[in-house]
Amino acid sequence: MGATRRGSDGVAGRDASGRGAAGPVTVLIASYLEREHVARISRTSGARVIYDPDLLPRPRYIADHTGLPLDRPPAAERRWRGYLAEADVMFDFDYTHLHDLVQLAPRVRWIQATSAGIGQMLLRTGLIRTPIVFTTASGIHATPLAEFVLFALLAFAKDFPRLVRDQAAHRWVRYCGRELRGTSAGIIGLGQVGRAVARACHALGVRVIGTRRTATGPRAAIEGVDVLVRSGELSTMLREVDALVLACPLTPQTQGLIGDAELRSMKRGAILVNIARGAVVDEPALIAALRDGHLGGAALDVAATEPLPADSPLWDLPNVLISPHSASTADTENAKLTDLFCENLGRYVRGEALLNVFDCERLY
Amino acid sequence: MGATRRGSDGVAGRDASGRGAAGPVTVLIASYLEREHVARISRTSGARVIYDPDLLPRPRYIADHTGLPLDRPPAAERRWRGYLAEADVMFDFDYTHLHDLVQLAPRVRWIQATSAGIGQMLLRTGLIRTPIVFTTASGIHATPLAEFVLFALLAFAKDFPRLVRDQAAHRWVRYCGRELRGTSAGIIGLGQVGRAVARACHALGVRVIGTRRTATGPRAAIEGVDVLVRSGELSTMLREVDALVLACPLTPQTQGLIGDAELRSMKRGAILVNIARGAVVDEPALIAALRDGHLGGAALDVAATEPLPADSPLWDLPNVLISPHSASTADTENAKLTDLFCENLGRYVRGEALLNVFDCERLY
Repeated sequence: MGATRRGSDGVAGRDASGRGAAGPVTVLIASYLEREHVARISRTSGARVIYDPDLLPRPRYIADHTGLPLDRPPAAERRWRGYLAEADVMFDFDYTHLHDLVQLAPRVRWIQATSAGIGQMLLRTGLIRTPIVFTTASGIHATPLAEFVLFALLAFAKDFPRLVRDQAAHRWVRYCGRELRGTSAGIIGLGQVGRAVARACHALGVRVIGTRRTATGPRAAIEGVDVLVRSGELSTMLREVDALVLACPLTPQTQGLIGDAELRSMKRGAILVNIARGAVVDEPALIAALRDGHLGGAALDVAATEPLPADSPLWDLPNVLISPHSASTADTENAKLTDLFCENLGRYVRGEALLNVFDCERLY
Repeated sequence: MGATRRGSDGVAGRDASGRGAAGPVTVLIASYLEREHVARISRTSGARVIYDPDLLPRPRYIADHTGLPLDRPPAAERRWRGYLAEADVMFDFDYTHLHDLVQLAPRVRWIQATSAGIGQMLLRTGLIRTPIVFTTASGIHATPLAEFVLFALLAFAKDFPRLVRDQAAHRWVRYCGRELRGTSAGIIGLGQVGRAVARACHALGVRVIGTRRTATGPRAAIEGVDVLVRSGELSTMLREVDALVLACPLTPQTQGLIGDAELRSMKRGAILVNIARGAVVDEPALIAALRDGHLGGAALDVAATEPLPADSPLWDLPNVLISPHSASTADTENAKLTDLFCENLGRYVRGEALLNVFDCERLY
């Protein structure tokens, strides 16, 4: 699906100069971005770029697109609304005006998201029912997420809970770890993230069994995937693998996909890595399977409720690694997002199909 | 160097039946080994295999070749000495008789070690001055060690200390990690371990600069090594890399190779991974560089004194990961050692050159 979802109106620029019927394309940068990246966007395609970091939530860390809560004084809020009124294109959502965005920013035709999993937010805010075209950051986070998965698999193979415990006790007791090479991993979801996970696992000699919604044959040529199974054959995969990696979007099809029966069908001692969304797994069933040792461990970058409540038993389970939804965030992120946005902005101005257009039916 | 180091005496069997001049080759298995592996050795080359686990130190974990301290009652000791007297070949050293082995086991021509780094032990015990041929386990541990290195590099990229700390405090605070892809790693020592580390790093997009004693040109075709530098160009490598991996044997040339000047020449925030031997690094200088933050972190599978003394400051440094010399030990080890030993035993019986013969001059 290209940028043509809007149909051919007179605003989405088709003029290589960056000027649509109503003048140059105005881009509003709606979350913090380093000056060097803003400058790159300004040099792209003759667009007019609005960037006023004083009016944006302050980032808590590099590539934080949500930022600290922000309460703009009236004058600042008026200025911000002025920007919204002028914007044709937005880099990131305005998290201070998700519900009334269409009213405040009536010219906006396209929003480039800074994350990949925006389906639930678009549903919740009603933005999904607007004529705005959304493009996702799909692919930007593939490398850091694949690295996190490998980190998690290696950490359990090397028994990191023991390493941490023994180090804290100043205890030098030799032990036998496991070799990751020669084990098998199942990957649910073979988008850009799942495929990057597959390549990384395969490169270390892990046998990869993959599945995705659209898998049509028993085997297809996806780099790093040794066996591709249909989504209907999930139970076969679960029985076979030493580790299960969830890398699918959250959709009605994947919500609660991994419940008690699925967890129990896995080998005793198997590892679960969730880099998808918490709701893909039945969390109480997961906790039970970790507690009684059926699962050997879990690395969770996501949780049913985020932030993970302080009283969740997951925090204290010795075979659980909690990551605060940060596995996708890396120091390289904003440079990559800017690359993607500049490419898309050029396409937008030239009237070409955009990359990473969100599909409102599939929800990814 | 092949098994011919002994010269052509009448004992090292050259008869395909496994019978030398003095009868069948007698193999004494001197450390605990699973029955299935012993059976495989017995089926090999017609050798006579002595395996009496009641007389061996009990292993503390899978593939523990040292075992718990053992004090054999007199009758058991007499039986054990009887075995030693008959042995032509030994699988592993007899750690209960390292210093008087030659006296107790006068027929022994060849010992297959279960580790790679035996030089210092052979020097210390004087075994290096005996005519026994030693073969090392070089290569057996390459995969688990390469996996440990990758685990360590990923752990620091993902800020593992923060994850552990925040999880213990039930604190969900998003943060920005680093991408390992695109960084660089220097590897000192390109034996089987160093080369496995290089391949694993390269597969994840890490630029690998390698060096070894025998490097002769600026670039040579070693899989996974992007740049090969001469050992004299170490300082160039140190300045350039984001991580330094020590995978060399401990020899007079490598003892204290990485001292204060070398550590200080590395980039601020760089990571050190030591899977070689503790004495390759000046430990007080390392501690200082970790304390003042010049080094970003260290993963240490070895220490100057092992076990690492309980009062070593290394235990409590927040940017240090201590592994109790166990990174090489994996559940697959004894099967691989048996593969190697069976191959070598066949060669021994046929009078062919053995694999992995220890070089008493190079000390590896």
